[in-house]
Amino acid sequence: MNDRLSVNVNGSFAYDITYNKGFDDLTSFLSKYDPESGKKVCVVSDSKVASFYLDAILRIIEKHCRKAVSFVFPEGEPSKNLNVVQQLYTKLIEEHFDRRDLLIALGGGVVGDLTGFTAATYLRGIDFIQVPTSLLADVDSSIGGKTGVDFDSYKNMVGAFHMPKLVFINIDTMDTLDMRQFNSGMAEVIKSALIRNKDFFDYLKTNSDLLKSRDKEALGEMIYQCNIIKKNVVEIDPTEKKERALLNLGHTLGHAIEKYMNFEMLHGECVFIGTVMAGIISKNKGLITKEDLNSIVEVISKYDVPKLPSDLDYHKIIMYTKNDKKVIGNKIKFILLNSIGEGIISTDVNDEDMLLSIEEYMNNYN
Amino acid sequence: MNDRLSVNVNGSFAYDITYNKGFDDLTSFLSKYDPESGKKVCVVSDSKVASFYLDAILRIIEKHCRKAVSFVFPEGEPSKNLNVVQQLYTKLIEEHFDRRDLLIALGGGVVGDLTGFTAATYLRGIDFIQVPTSLLADVDSSIGGKTGVDFDSYKNMVGAFHMPKLVFINIDTMDTLDMRQFNSGMAEVIKSALIRNKDFFDYLKTNSDLLKSRDKEALGEMIYQCNIIKKNVVEIDPTEKKERALLNLGHTLGHAIEKYMNFEMLHGECVFIGTVMAGIISKNKGLITKEDLNSIVEVISKYDVPKLPSDLDYHKIIMYTKNDKKVIGNKIKFILLNSIGEGIISTDVNDEDMLLSIEEYMNNYN
Repeated sequence: MNDRLSVNVNGSFAYDITYNKGFDDLTSFLSKYDPESGKKVCVVSDSKVASFYLDAILRIIEKHCRKAVSFVFPEGEPSKNLNVVQQLYTKLIEEHFDRRDLLIALGGGVVGDLTGFTAATYLRGIDFIQVPTSLLADVDSSIGGKTGVDFDSYKNMVGAFHMPKLVFINIDTMDTLDMRQFNSGMAEVIKSALIRNKDFFDYLKTNSDLLKSRDKEALGEMIYQCNIIKKNVVEIDPTEKKERALLNLGHTLGHAIEKYMNFEMLHGECVFIGTVMAGIISKNKGLITKEDLNSIVEVISKYDVPKLPSDLDYHKIIMYTKNDKKVIGNKIKFILLNSIGEGIISTDVNDEDMLLSIEEYMNNYN
Repeated sequence: MNDRLSVNVNGSFAYDITYNKGFDDLTSFLSKYDPESGKKVCVVSDSKVASFYLDAILRIIEKHCRKAVSFVFPEGEPSKNLNVVQQLYTKLIEEHFDRRDLLIALGGGVVGDLTGFTAATYLRGIDFIQVPTSLLADVDSSIGGKTGVDFDSYKNMVGAFHMPKLVFINIDTMDTLDMRQFNSGMAEVIKSALIRNKDFFDYLKTNSDLLKSRDKEALGEMIYQCNIIKKNVVEIDPTEKKERALLNLGHTLGHAIEKYMNFEMLHGECVFIGTVMAGIISKNKGLITKEDLNSIVEVISKYDVPKLPSDLDYHKIIMYTKNDKKVIGNKIKFILLNSIGEGIISTDVNDEDMLLSIEEYMNNYN
C-alpha cells in the first residue's frame, strides 16, 4: 500500500494524505500534533458512520489529547446546513473550545464539508483533520480544502477554503459502505480519470470487476491515483480560479439534477448523469467521437446509475444551473472533454446545448 | 491630506487605504476594478448610515458597474448575527450574484464585519470593499481583514480572515457621527497610541480640544497615524497568531463588560473601561507608574465614558472573559502596558488580578 502523498498550497507544504488499514496510525499524527496533550478534540460525525467507528476513534484520541468529545448529526445531505453548523458552534462554546483545539471530520462528504466550514469560521478558523469513510470523500471531497454547506437548497452556496491538517484514509472503511454509496463514489473516480489520465480510465475499464468486489489492493491503488490527480489540480489552483474548475466535470448539470430531485439521488449518481451529458455535449461539439462517448457510458453503466423520471422538466433543470457557482457573469463555465483524459473549460455551452444533451440522454441512456 | 497607505499580506500588496473628501473618488477605483462594467455591486449598510449616504454611493456605482443593488439592515450590534447574514445571502442569490461580483460595506464596524463575513463565505469568497463611516471603523475594524458576527451573545465568535480590495475613508462622514459614536471611536485611537507610539499618545493629549471639535485636518492626521500602527501590526501577523493580539488592549474585560451590559453600551465605551482596567493591572504588576495610569485616565476622561452600575457583579464579568477568543488553553492572553507606547502580551493575568482591577476602577474612576 502507498504510504503518503503531500499536498502543497502556494508552494509550501500544507498537509499529508496518509493511507492506512484501521485507525491505529492516527496516533503517530496526534503525538506530533499535540505532544503536550494540551488540546481538546471534537469528533464530528453522522449517525450512521458514528455507529461504526466513533468509539474506536474516541478511544485512540483520548490517549493523546486533553479531552475528546463528539458531535453527531443525522446522516444525509439535508443535514448539511447552517442550522447544524450552529448546533456545532454551540457545542464547541459549551466545551470551551479555543483557537488551539481541533475538529476531526469522521465521515463522508457531508461530514467533511460541514466540519471543515465550522473549523474555517469558529473563532475565525481552527484546525481540523479529515478522516473520510466514503469512497467519494477518499477521492474527492476530503482533499483540497473546499468546505461549505447548502443554503436555501443551493449546493455549497456558503463556504470557505480551509485546508485540513491531515487527510487520514482508512481503506478498511470501504467494508461498511453500502453498494449505492460505493457506486456513487465511483462517479468522482471516473470523472478524475476522464479529465486527466487516459491510462487510468483504461485501468478502470479493465479492472471494473475487481474494483466492484472491493479488492483492497485495487481500491488502494485507485484512490491513490485519484488523489494524485486531485493534488496536482488543487496545487496549481487552490481557490478554483481556473484549472481546478476541471474537477467540476459533470457537476453543472449534475448539481441541477440533484436539486431537481430534491437531493433524493446521491451526489455521485447525479455526477454520473451529468458526466454523460457533458460527454454528449463534447461529442455534439465535435470534440470527442461517438465511440469515446460509448466508452464512457460503458464504464459508467457498471455502477447502477438510477433512472431519471420520464416526465423530467428539462427547462427547470436548465434554470437550476443558473445559480450554480460555476456561472461567471451569466456565462456558465462548463467542463467538456477534448478527449478521454483531457478536460477543458468552456464558456461556449448555452441553454440549447444543455437541452439537447438532456434530451439525448433521456432518449438513449436513461 | 494624506493620499494612501498600502497594506501587504504575506509580503505582497493586498489593498490600499485611501483618504478622501466625499465619495467621488470611488470612481477611480471602480474604473480600474471593473473596466468593462461587467460586475454587479451590492452596497450593504445599516438603516442610519443608509439614510445619509446610500443614494450618493449608488449614484456613483451605477455609472461604473453593470448593476447596483443595496441591502439595508437595522442599525446596531444586535443585527450582527447569522440571521442577517442569511438574509444577505438570499438577496445575493435572488440577484444572481456570482464569484466575480462585489460587496461594498458602507457603515461602521457592524456593517463592515458582517459584510466582510458574508463576502468571505458566499460562494466560498467574493470581493468586498470597506467604506467606513464611523471613527471606529476608520481606525480599526475596516483594516486587517478580520470579519465576523456575534453568536449566542458571544462577540465575533463566528468569522473569517478575508481582506478587502480597498478601504475608502471619507473624512466628511465624521460630520454625521453623533457625539457618543465619535467618543467611542476614540477608544481605539487611544488604544493604538498606548500599545505602539508614545509621541502619538502625547499628540492626542495635547490636541484633544481640536480633535473634539472635529477639525478635519487634525482628524485626518489622527486616522492616518492609527492606520500606520494597525497596518504595521497586521502586516507582521495577519491572522492574529501573536503580535496582532496587542490590538486587543482593553478588549478582554471590555468585551466581558459589553456582554454584561447586554450590548447597551457601545464597543468603544467598554474598551475605554477595559483599557483603564488593563492600565490598573499593569500598574499593580509594577510595569507602569501611578502617574502613567493617571495620564491614561486623563486622556480617556475627555470622552464621556459612561458610568457602570454600582451593583456590578464582578464575578459575572470574570466569567464572561472565559469564552473570549483570547483564551488560550484556559490561559487568557491579556494585553498589558510595559510603558505608555509599548503593549505586551501576558499570560500571567489571573482572575484575582482582574477582580482587583475592577474593584479599583469602580472605587476610583467610575
